[in-house]
Amino acid sequence: MKKLINDVDDVLAESLDGFAVAHADIVTLGAERKFVRRKDLKPGKVALISGGGSGHEPLHAGFVGHGMLDAACPGQVFTSPTPDQMLAAAEAVDGGAGTLFIVKNYSGDMMNFQMAAEMLTSDNATVIVNDDVAVENSTYTTGRRGVAGTLVVEKIVGAAAERGDNLSALKALGDGVNKATASMGVALTSCTVPAAGKPTFQIGNDEMEMGVGIHGEPGRRRVKLGSADAIAAELVGSILKDLSMKRGQETILLVNGFGGTPMLELYLMVTAAHKVLAGAGIKVARHLTGSYVTSLEMAGCSISVTAVDAASLVLWDAPVHTAVLRWGA
Amino acid sequence: MKKLINDVDDVLAESLDGFAVAHADIVTLGAERKFVRRKDLKPGKVALISGGGSGHEPLHAGFVGHGMLDAACPGQVFTSPTPDQMLAAAEAVDGGAGTLFIVKNYSGDMMNFQMAAEMLTSDNATVIVNDDVAVENSTYTTGRRGVAGTLVVEKIVGAAAERGDNLSALKALGDGVNKATASMGVALTSCTVPAAGKPTFQIGNDEMEMGVGIHGEPGRRRVKLGSADAIAAELVGSILKDLSMKRGQETILLVNGFGGTPMLELYLMVTAAHKVLAGAGIKVARHLTGSYVTSLEMAGCSISVTAVDAASLVLWDAPVHTAVLRWGA
Repeated sequence: MKKLINDVDDVLAESLDGFAVAHADIVTLGAERKFVRRKDLKPGKVALISGGGSGHEPLHAGFVGHGMLDAACPGQVFTSPTPDQMLAAAEAVDGGAGTLFIVKNYSGDMMNFQMAAEMLTSDNATVIVNDDVAVENSTYTTGRRGVAGTLVVEKIVGAAAERGDNLSALKALGDGVNKATASMGVALTSCTVPAAGKPTFQIGNDEMEMGVGIHGEPGRRRVKLGSADAIAAELVGSILKDLSMKRGQETILLVNGFGGTPMLELYLMVTAAHKVLAGAGIKVARHLTGSYVTSLEMAGCSISVTAVDAASLVLWDAPVHTAVLRWGA
Repeated sequence: MKKLINDVDDVLAESLDGFAVAHADIVTLGAERKFVRRKDLKPGKVALISGGGSGHEPLHAGFVGHGMLDAACPGQVFTSPTPDQMLAAAEAVDGGAGTLFIVKNYSGDMMNFQMAAEMLTSDNATVIVNDDVAVENSTYTTGRRGVAGTLVVEKIVGAAAERGDNLSALKALGDGVNKATASMGVALTSCTVPAAGKPTFQIGNDEMEMGVGIHGEPGRRRVKLGSADAIAAELVGSILKDLSMKRGQETILLVNGFGGTPMLELYLMVTAAHKVLAGAGIKVARHLTGSYVTSLEMAGCSISVTAVDAASLVLWDAPVHTAVLRWGA
């Protein structure tokens, strides 16, 4: 295992410390590093909290800040955070208007966030993200997995929370964005979890895992490495089949790297995805391209498409100021 | 070779097309893809132009926009752009106040930018970036290499150009920032140039290349993989030796990933770098952490430190709106 680390047991703590010091203008680290919270809270606003296993950086802590999350709870690598972390976060960022949890659909996360939600005495609701169209049920999941589309949910719901929407409106909005979002990924190499010390899976030099999950869990099938155009055709084709959009539909296109793929290739995948979308008459209103929802250093990418209307585009375009996503005033 | 590409010969063109469509609000692609230029030019402003081999994305095209570069000329992967590209870019973004070229110190780039500068009929000057303290002379270089510190030069000089500084002032500022900046990197794995189809260098499973260049060219020595703290001690130690700063000096700290290293590790390196800097009494006034000046999918990182004063901090903090760096109003 080749990693820039000291002791395997200290990876998360030392990384969180670096994150907190590098972005001290935006975030504060909670006691015992239970959560990363927005530094300047907004009273009267619904608190948005997400979290999950680490190893997907910049998700979620990189999206804490104005216009997006109020707190993120980092578990150990590919391991759910505990209900204790979520409760501590909820108490720390409570603005008096309730709490919305945004949870990726993995069994561990679902169980722990549900326990936290039940223990929390103030109003709360949960949006479950399950945008991955690759497979039903998987290594860590009942139903579809939550993957890169989580970022889109967090951005749009975060903007609505910032403008003052109430808890039930945000819950409905989040469910709607999740339903309008579909994703699928491909892996060219495995990642290596520090505590495991060896690759999560073995894959041949000429193979790829089509439909891979963001923990390196199996997708639809193992096949020979294809061209970017062929990969885009399958990923976007599966997405469009799931979303069943009409020609002329406007969308957000997220081409997301898994951590080990250069931007040179990600932008090439944008070109490849555009060909497929144009062929189906689907319009791309907004782009986001980069390694935002990763699997440590796994090579590969996912494509996410979200169907949008004028109202959701306003929320996507609304100002955001986090460690990683930044635009608007 | 496992990459998300179609034909090896089309990698750069298809990637540039994707970049241009994804950031059509900020950039325009020049004819024959000779350059990426800022969409909204500012008349009367000194034009800032950089460029170099591709494979270092987001450098340079990702830094074209308000407050940074006016144009970037992309060569093939790890290959200098041609004088023809630089001339076309200079003519396209001429604001009537002269042109400043920002050039990383590699023999090919130096020769081609110099030819372009000589052919250009309008006023121009060149800032040469050579921030890499690892080695004197190298595979593609006479003297020190230009690496991740280039980003810092482009940001600070870009902000000064945006506020209206003239050509000679910008040239002096750029030279000053370069002199105040030192960098050094380490590689854990090699990258693979698409046209070559195999890794640039071989490295053992327990080895790292200390002082590596951003094309995978040799550094100081090949050693056994060390801890993050030991790596930071050597990188930051070499940097501090070069900059010979006084205790209490304020700095910008750039922890830069080479493309294949997760943010989890980069932020851990921030913590490691802080320990060394604190020990030397050096203050970190600003942080930038991420994969900004890459070597395709190489695993590893570089650390850059720039000594700053109040005036250069104002320029660092000044608004920037590019594909990748964004802050301020």
